[in-house]
Amino acid sequence: MTDRETIVSRLSMLRAEMKRAGIDVYLMTTSDCHASEYVGDRFKVVEYFTGCTSDNVVLVIDATGAYLWTDGRYFISAQGELEGTGVRLMRSGEKGVPTVGKFLQDTLHDGMVLGFDGRCVNADTGAGYRRIAASRHCRIEGRADLPSKIWIDRPNLPQNPVTILPDSLAGESFESKLDKVREKFLEAGASYLFLSKLDDIMWLTNLRGRDIQCNPVALSYALIGRSTFDLFIQDEVVTDTLSLWAREKRIKLHDYHDLYDYLQDYHFEGPVMVCNSATNDSLVHLLREKTQVINHQNPTEMLKAVKNAVEIENSKKFYLLDSAQVCRFIYRIKKAVAAGEDVTEISAAANIDALRAEIPGFMELSFPTISAFGANAAMAHYAPTEESCSRVDAPGMLLVDSGGQYMGATTDETRTIVFGEVSQKMKRDFTLVAVSNLALMNAVFAKGTTGTQLDAIAREPLARYGLDFNHGTGHGIGYILNVHEGPQRIGRPRRNAEDPAMEAGMITSDEPGIYREGEYGIRTESITLCVPAATTEFGEFLKFEPLTYIPIDLDAIDPAYMTDTDLLRLNEYHAMVREKISPLLDGEERAWLEEATRPVSRV
Amino acid sequence: MTDRETIVSRLSMLRAEMKRAGIDVYLMTTSDCHASEYVGDRFKVVEYFTGCTSDNVVLVIDATGAYLWTDGRYFISAQGELEGTGVRLMRSGEKGVPTVGKFLQDTLHDGMVLGFDGRCVNADTGAGYRRIAASRHCRIEGRADLPSKIWIDRPNLPQNPVTILPDSLAGESFESKLDKVREKFLEAGASYLFLSKLDDIMWLTNLRGRDIQCNPVALSYALIGRSTFDLFIQDEVVTDTLSLWAREKRIKLHDYHDLYDYLQDYHFEGPVMVCNSATNDSLVHLLREKTQVINHQNPTEMLKAVKNAVEIENSKKFYLLDSAQVCRFIYRIKKAVAAGEDVTEISAAANIDALRAEIPGFMELSFPTISAFGANAAMAHYAPTEESCSRVDAPGMLLVDSGGQYMGATTDETRTIVFGEVSQKMKRDFTLVAVSNLALMNAVFAKGTTGTQLDAIAREPLARYGLDFNHGTGHGIGYILNVHEGPQRIGRPRRNAEDPAMEAGMITSDEPGIYREGEYGIRTESITLCVPAATTEFGEFLKFEPLTYIPIDLDAIDPAYMTDTDLLRLNEYHAMVREKISPLLDGEERAWLEEATRPVSRV
Repeated sequence: MTDRETIVSRLSMLRAEMKRAGIDVYLMTTSDCHASEYVGDRFKVVEYFTGCTSDNVVLVIDATGAYLWTDGRYFISAQGELEGTGVRLMRSGEKGVPTVGKFLQDTLHDGMVLGFDGRCVNADTGAGYRRIAASRHCRIEGRADLPSKIWIDRPNLPQNPVTILPDSLAGESFESKLDKVREKFLEAGASYLFLSKLDDIMWLTNLRGRDIQCNPVALSYALIGRSTFDLFIQDEVVTDTLSLWAREKRIKLHDYHDLYDYLQDYHFEGPVMVCNSATNDSLVHLLREKTQVINHQNPTEMLKAVKNAVEIENSKKFYLLDSAQVCRFIYRIKKAVAAGEDVTEISAAANIDALRAEIPGFMELSFPTISAFGANAAMAHYAPTEESCSRVDAPGMLLVDSGGQYMGATTDETRTIVFGEVSQKMKRDFTLVAVSNLALMNAVFAKGTTGTQLDAIAREPLARYGLDFNHGTGHGIGYILNVHEGPQRIGRPRRNAEDPAMEAGMITSDEPGIYREGEYGIRTESITLCVPAATTEFGEFLKFEPLTYIPIDLDAIDPAYMTDTDLLRLNEYHAMVREKISPLLDGEERAWLEEATRPVSRV
Repeated sequence: MTDRETIVSRLSMLRAEMKRAGIDVYLMTTSDCHASEYVGDRFKVVEYFTGCTSDNVVLVIDATGAYLWTDGRYFISAQGELEGTGVRLMRSGEKGVPTVGKFLQDTLHDGMVLGFDGRCVNADTGAGYRRIAASRHCRIEGRADLPSKIWIDRPNLPQNPVTILPDSLAGESFESKLDKVREKFLEAGASYLFLSKLDDIMWLTNLRGRDIQCNPVALSYALIGRSTFDLFIQDEVVTDTLSLWAREKRIKLHDYHDLYDYLQDYHFEGPVMVCNSATNDSLVHLLREKTQVINHQNPTEMLKAVKNAVEIENSKKFYLLDSAQVCRFIYRIKKAVAAGEDVTEISAAANIDALRAEIPGFMELSFPTISAFGANAAMAHYAPTEESCSRVDAPGMLLVDSGGQYMGATTDETRTIVFGEVSQKMKRDFTLVAVSNLALMNAVFAKGTTGTQLDAIAREPLARYGLDFNHGTGHGIGYILNVHEGPQRIGRPRRNAEDPAMEAGMITSDEPGIYREGEYGIRTESITLCVPAATTEFGEFLKFEPLTYIPIDLDAIDPAYMTDTDLLRLNEYHAMVREKISPLLDGEERAWLEEATRPVSRV
């Protein structure tokens, strides 16, 4: 962690640079040039200037203050990280906390200049800032990369090898995907599609990279025409194999860094489709100068979200292997803690990471393992460090959220592991989280039902007890790709956000939780596959089928908070876990699984 | 009903008028000049030209064809009404059926003219037509009132007396409401608010009229400035009392018919707020010529939806009286049918209407009673006529959807009454509708939860059995006002439609159903009041409390399709019905209620 003095000094250097550049208010986000959710070290500018490690952050600095917005997942950790830095935490969504937009509206006065690096702000957000600035009679300086002026040893872009997935592993050829994508953008009246979203480019090309930790993507852009395909990728990673592949696929390779010049000189023969929320502000502005821009969700999004038969089959296979390793992990850690062995959050994370690495086909983690004991687990995305690492001990609960990238799946799952006899309140909360998880898992719904609708089914059993949680209930998951993937999302309604219907073939998480600041945190996350339930005279119906088969810890289940239906669902789920995972375990571990998945009854 | 020959002849006269006016495609909707849901006879142009009595209709006529769009509630009835007329039924929302917009896009060619009466099309819809016409290089003729040229005896506007509600009945004075409304539109940057939505004007002024059957509204418009209030109402209905009232309230009265001239000459000193979806196309165009128009939901909408303490108290009182009469009705009709008496859909409707009229404070029905037996009930909004009236007989089910306007409430409720031993399939469907109704009624949810989210909770128990229904699950209800009122709505997500959060104080229906064409229809509708459930460290939570207390017919309840929770909910609801309604009944009726609300168990 960076010490407070360093932060204060970096911020004052930034203010000096602002002054020099004639910028009154400077804005930074944790975003790379591709509007990625996770970014490489080069783009961790907010962390560099504030010490805050949250993933979803906006920092606004003016002459006197610095304000950092983040969401509910990070309130607790950010509060700690910002202490003593003079940076004020703005808890997004909480009562009385203005949005960034509202704040800028109140802060900007006539003639002031708002600056940001347009390559690290998506075009939707950029347009919002422009509107606000205009309404306050202020100017925008959208090409101000001030961090680079101060951050001398700012990391360079990574240049890691690129892999070509065989069609047998991708389940669909590049050519076939390209046909579908072309049909979509031509149908919408565009002559071109410009892609900057890395996982969309990876899905379409069947390439995979390693340029962002845990996300198997290669830094790239793609410009697709009626019969052309220009792929921009760093020259340094282009091997003979990749060149040969590109020639075969009729893909023209360009250096990643030549994109802006190339577009500047390009003769567009019609409108280009771009997703403003997934493309940086500078690029959209450049494209707008060249041709008509059609703002549209990337057609790759929905095609990528609905998994093909091979993707589903491989995912099922790897989720079983992955679940079995998590079961082993739970067995071992429960035994170790019971035996009084020295177990910490970090040793637990190392343990599960090592077990995952044993699975043939393992590539890397799909995100840094969250291993959080006691009050640490109330921070939804806590990561232990050597300095702040709790010992795992009874009584208490350890929340482990982890997943892997395999040559055939991206996994993600959370279990909260119970040690010793925990309090009645913990049991109640734990049980209700399980009920919520199972309610969503067992939902049956008409085709057309959206993720925000399904969210109500998950939160209802908690609301009944005045409980809720401050994050989404479910996110889409990639196939050998990003662990967070759109467009589907199970969560509360968001203004102006897409809320697509759930479709058969989508892979989505189911992860309700309860977090009590200073006390404990509980989350139960299983991954689901959306499948057809029935087709009747009333229409088509869908349901979920679990991909994750890991016991929900019965040591904190109290049937008093469950209806008969809830109990039936829990027992049915555990029967499936037993049936599917037992054959993958042996001896003591298998015996433990039998016990851990025993039927629960009210008596 | 108009005979087929008349329809055919009227349509050919219309085509002749179209030719004369140089219009290639003419469009008609069932709308008055106020974008009302229900309209006076003058505006039933689609019925005049097609014989179709559906409420929500768009008719498009070109040189060779006529196409009528309506929604799922009317598919079955419209099909029958249109038979032999040459008008093609377009089932909105069904697979392969284009929207009106898509149809126009396909029909309009270069140079063609699309005509409609802009006073009877809301400005949002009008703008959509304009966009389509422009994209097809066609012209719009938005002031073409062709129906009046053919419909010689077209009814005039009604001119019925206006009532002033005392503040003690309205629960809030006009002045207090006006302050709140002014604050809202000034806050949004408007200097004026223009209202044409009749129930919004009635709510704000505390006036009530009788110009639309079942809707206690007076034809009117209002232009509200920073310190002015212009009310346009027909001179013929202005009494001395009303003039005096207006003077006291500093309201300037104008003749309803002077509106367009007045606006044409008005000097606007700032932007005017108008709700495009609730104001006709001609008016919005006129306002746009005069000043800047801010398209915004009427601020009256949300204020009106959240009922005040007096409105809630009176509603509770009248809903009990109303429920008691429906209980009497059910008791009597069950007895009559069992005794082999001659009961028809019409006699049943007359019976419930008469019972309602006995309640002190009764004004009129809140909508024409729906009394539908057997297969007729599969038409969600069926109304019996002398010619097509079924006898009510055992075994079978009678769906009665009815309500009243009282000097203290607007009511609405549906029960499906069971006669004799109905089939196992009917029992299953009936039970699942009850389960759905009770699931929504018992929902607990965080503040911020929207109607489309709650919809998933209602439909889930049906989806589990491959069942669904083709209408909304719930609508807001007025207070001595329209039986359908926004902005809240429990239903499937709609593109670009508002989906406001449910708020404490809202009165909303809960009315799932199952309709099997040619067989039977079931709907169970209770009205709910949204109330606080709890406030905890996790936020505020809301729930529903029933206003309707009428038994759900146990003769078709099969506990085999209910969970223990479902059974508990049914028994709890019936215990409340018994407790609240028994004191309002006597003798045999009371004894029947005891039996009709008996606890049900699985054995």
